[in-house]
Amino acid sequence: MSDPAAPKVHPPDVMKKLTALCKSRGFVFPSSEIYGGLKSAYDYGPLGSELKRNIMNEWWRDMVTRRENIVGIDAAIIMHPEVWRASGHAAGFADPLVDCKISKERFRADKAPRVRPGDELPITAPDAARAKDWQELIAKDYGVQLVRDGCVLRGLRCVSPQEFGYFAPGAAAPSRTWPFRGYVSPSCGSPFLTEEKQFNLMFRTTLGPVDQLGDLARVIAELTASGDLAAAVRARFGKACDSGPLAAALASGERARILHAVMEHVSQTSLVYLRPETAQAMFVQFKNVLECTGLKPPFGIAQMGKSFRNEVTVEHFIFRSCEFEQMEMEFFCEPGTQGEWLAYWKAERMRWWTRYANYPASFRFRQHGKDEMAFYADDCYDIEYFYPWGWGELEGIASRTDYDLTQHERHSGVALQYVDQEKADPRTGEKPWKYKPFVIEPAAGATRAVLCFLLDAYHEEERRTAAGDTELRTVLKLHPRLAPIKAAVLPLVKKDGMPERARAILERLLDAGINAKYDEKASIGKRYAKHDEAGTPWCITVDGQTLQDGTVTLRDRDTTAQRRLSVDDALAAVRSALGA
Amino acid sequence: MSDPAAPKVHPPDVMKKLTALCKSRGFVFPSSEIYGGLKSAYDYGPLGSELKRNIMNEWWRDMVTRRENIVGIDAAIIMHPEVWRASGHAAGFADPLVDCKISKERFRADKAPRVRPGDELPITAPDAARAKDWQELIAKDYGVQLVRDGCVLRGLRCVSPQEFGYFAPGAAAPSRTWPFRGYVSPSCGSPFLTEEKQFNLMFRTTLGPVDQLGDLARVIAELTASGDLAAAVRARFGKACDSGPLAAALASGERARILHAVMEHVSQTSLVYLRPETAQAMFVQFKNVLECTGLKPPFGIAQMGKSFRNEVTVEHFIFRSCEFEQMEMEFFCEPGTQGEWLAYWKAERMRWWTRYANYPASFRFRQHGKDEMAFYADDCYDIEYFYPWGWGELEGIASRTDYDLTQHERHSGVALQYVDQEKADPRTGEKPWKYKPFVIEPAAGATRAVLCFLLDAYHEEERRTAAGDTELRTVLKLHPRLAPIKAAVLPLVKKDGMPERARAILERLLDAGINAKYDEKASIGKRYAKHDEAGTPWCITVDGQTLQDGTVTLRDRDTTAQRRLSVDDALAAVRSALGA
Repeated sequence: MSDPAAPKVHPPDVMKKLTALCKSRGFVFPSSEIYGGLKSAYDYGPLGSELKRNIMNEWWRDMVTRRENIVGIDAAIIMHPEVWRASGHAAGFADPLVDCKISKERFRADKAPRVRPGDELPITAPDAARAKDWQELIAKDYGVQLVRDGCVLRGLRCVSPQEFGYFAPGAAAPSRTWPFRGYVSPSCGSPFLTEEKQFNLMFRTTLGPVDQLGDLARVIAELTASGDLAAAVRARFGKACDSGPLAAALASGERARILHAVMEHVSQTSLVYLRPETAQAMFVQFKNVLECTGLKPPFGIAQMGKSFRNEVTVEHFIFRSCEFEQMEMEFFCEPGTQGEWLAYWKAERMRWWTRYANYPASFRFRQHGKDEMAFYADDCYDIEYFYPWGWGELEGIASRTDYDLTQHERHSGVALQYVDQEKADPRTGEKPWKYKPFVIEPAAGATRAVLCFLLDAYHEEERRTAAGDTELRTVLKLHPRLAPIKAAVLPLVKKDGMPERARAILERLLDAGINAKYDEKASIGKRYAKHDEAGTPWCITVDGQTLQDGTVTLRDRDTTAQRRLSVDDALAAVRSALGA
Repeated sequence: MSDPAAPKVHPPDVMKKLTALCKSRGFVFPSSEIYGGLKSAYDYGPLGSELKRNIMNEWWRDMVTRRENIVGIDAAIIMHPEVWRASGHAAGFADPLVDCKISKERFRADKAPRVRPGDELPITAPDAARAKDWQELIAKDYGVQLVRDGCVLRGLRCVSPQEFGYFAPGAAAPSRTWPFRGYVSPSCGSPFLTEEKQFNLMFRTTLGPVDQLGDLARVIAELTASGDLAAAVRARFGKACDSGPLAAALASGERARILHAVMEHVSQTSLVYLRPETAQAMFVQFKNVLECTGLKPPFGIAQMGKSFRNEVTVEHFIFRSCEFEQMEMEFFCEPGTQGEWLAYWKAERMRWWTRYANYPASFRFRQHGKDEMAFYADDCYDIEYFYPWGWGELEGIASRTDYDLTQHERHSGVALQYVDQEKADPRTGEKPWKYKPFVIEPAAGATRAVLCFLLDAYHEEERRTAAGDTELRTVLKLHPRLAPIKAAVLPLVKKDGMPERARAILERLLDAGINAKYDEKASIGKRYAKHDEAGTPWCITVDGQTLQDGTVTLRDRDTTAQRRLSVDDALAAVRSALGA
């Protein structure tokens, strides 16, 4: 093991090895793999589903069960669409996307490489054949013959922040120019791009057994039957054409834009979204929770569950996927106390993450800059993990002021406040004090927690075999409370009554609520190696001596050391280590 | 309590009362309530989220943790769309829906009331004013003047299975007839209906940050710009117009149908569904699970999680909602052994349900008739519960043969079989035996389990107060392992060191992994009443005597009896009852 006081040095190619281990041991499978897979999501196998459950149960225990002033909820994934208008997700949760006209790649404009006046703009194809095709495409569509050099096409250069041009070989001035937006396609470098379009990251669906496309088709068939689309739209939708998107589309006179606005208008009635975060439900159910619990600030509402985002880029295995799980808590406190509660929750949450880690130094805080924060936020920190590709987000802890409650109050017309009968309003000096609590939000990624604890646990160790050779041992040093299987019970051989003795021990573990597995397949060495890869902290082996004196061996996953103990002592050792 | 040997007799208006209790105590809230609610789903509050977790944890413990040959998975909600073509859900999971042209109600044709030749067909409006409107509408659209009698319109009668007619008062023969399909609108009785349309119950959404409606609008703007829609479609989609839905739509010559087919065709590339059941993931990941676990038949793969169905009718509180949770297991066994395993799982699952119930006789089996079962099914049973509206489904236990694996093998091209090296193929007599296991599927509703255990637990009891009056006590007699809070720790008063003593007891309960709550608000009687409604099995009260001799009272929720015990004995009593 490397130095636990420094961030973990991940073994070379760890992501590749971990992904392979996850599949072979049953932690994480590609989703729908027999159908070629869906890159948007992953399936958790027998061990992975237990690991994820354990992580989420630990969070719930620490955040809800053990705290007097925090309660849990479990809200629906499909919420009222007005929730997302109030929260800002319907309008603002959108990325500007652009298509490259050469490579056809779609990318995020705000993350694309920027270039400066004078910079050359080489276009790089994946291979020479493709470069030749692109060269021809550009000659045909843009009337310039770029110079081909293997996979690279040359001749373009940035002229100004608003313009790029074609420079014939040796020419000092461009013979042709085009408008420019200052960035190029990230993979091929092409500056030939479509307009930026806003794509909302929320998944849309329709509620109710409606045939949405059929309904749209009927409306559009009618509207386009006559020669005058605009007149037909005005006749059908009347006042709705006076303002908003329909009015803007009609004013543009563009056929596709008008049809798009009509489709959006018609589909509004049944449009709903899959939640892009679990947090909003805590604000929407704030009043119900307050009424049924009688809690008073400071108090929290917590939730774990799935969220969905139509990410442009899914990357780094389960780090970023379209379907993922969150563990979020909204902590409601008196205005003015948010600073101290932010400090409190930073400490609490860091304590939680590092409690289960071999390398606490792989976790750090990063304060958000003013330009990163939402306009309503007071202050914000990320807890970051040192992934193989560098520091990246695990959890955000934000001081959100009373923005969310204010927004939902405004959109719903329902007062979302706390009435403190015992305190005087600081402005008027009169009781009661009615106020909207300020919010601290520790929002952790459960899917990322799975990845981070797997990375923290993954170790390759050289060790000497009985024959004197060195071999590589792969072991997942998962915290015992997170490990999918806590103890494997192994009969040395499948005879002489050893299986029966082992099964009796298994029953005692299960009765104590400890997830244990019986395993009699393959040699004892292979079984140990398998449980090292599964992250099982202890193996309890029943052997010949067990039949004589009732003792077993208790093998420690991390040291591989074995102790001989009575069954009672072995079980007590497992139980006490788990209770830690 | 009524007779536990008979199905529970539910108190009058139990659904109304239970729904109110669920909201006031924090079990179940209407979803997005401050925005007027979404009928499709419910949110679980502080107690409800714990109850649901407990039920699902009990299922997992019994089905996965305690069984050597069953493992769990946790797959993505969005799966590859081909999964649903293979399973039959994309084509067959559709209900024939019809709109009533008079009341505008949409309903399922297959569930609508049937009428016979000669039957009168009265149309019943909600009120007299509406009846008058409908009378005028029918006169205008169908040219007949029905007789109005309060809310009812008379004069129509079924003539034959294919025809209904208008009979003038006293006339023996109809003066006018219309085609008939044998059924009428369920709420108003009208036979004036639209054609049946198939609506798929699966929620559709689009994967990837695509602007689906924008893309469709661009395509349709182009296609409809020229005068000849069919020619434009043929020019654009070429071969795709030679067969399938595009060909059929073009052949019909109907503008709306052609546009609909075009939209379906264009949206196919990014179309995905929210899973309508958790079960298919077990078939899709069958091979991965087999490879990583080395299990051999008989073995099972289990999963719990959310599923989504765009139900036509959401009803009976959380009984039928669009977003719900399931607990499903696929048990893979040797062909020929499915009969004995079906019997085994029927018994196991009934044992599980009744273990947590006060009224085991409220649960029964119902075998499916041949006409109810899917064509591939061998046999099928429901476990039904006696709801306030009668017997209804809780869990289905189906013998599904090798249908699912066969379908996924066919659609994916990946062999989904088990190779038994030790057995000879019964047909050839040669080893190994390669076969597709047969499947027994116990598929339970977790959301329905919440409702059923709440109904089983709900009791109203008259009891005499200290003052000699009778009062009604509402108590949820939830099984201790299901109860959200296991024990409430209550200081009799908020002084004299009682809170400190109580909090010390709380800590000991929490340390033992028992979900307990400290509560010092309101009188002790009110706190007992609150915890009766919350289903908390035990209240531990710290009073004056505790300060003297260290004893507490342990109050039993069901009997309201109190015992005075040492703290150790009280904790031991709670622990041992929970271990049961």
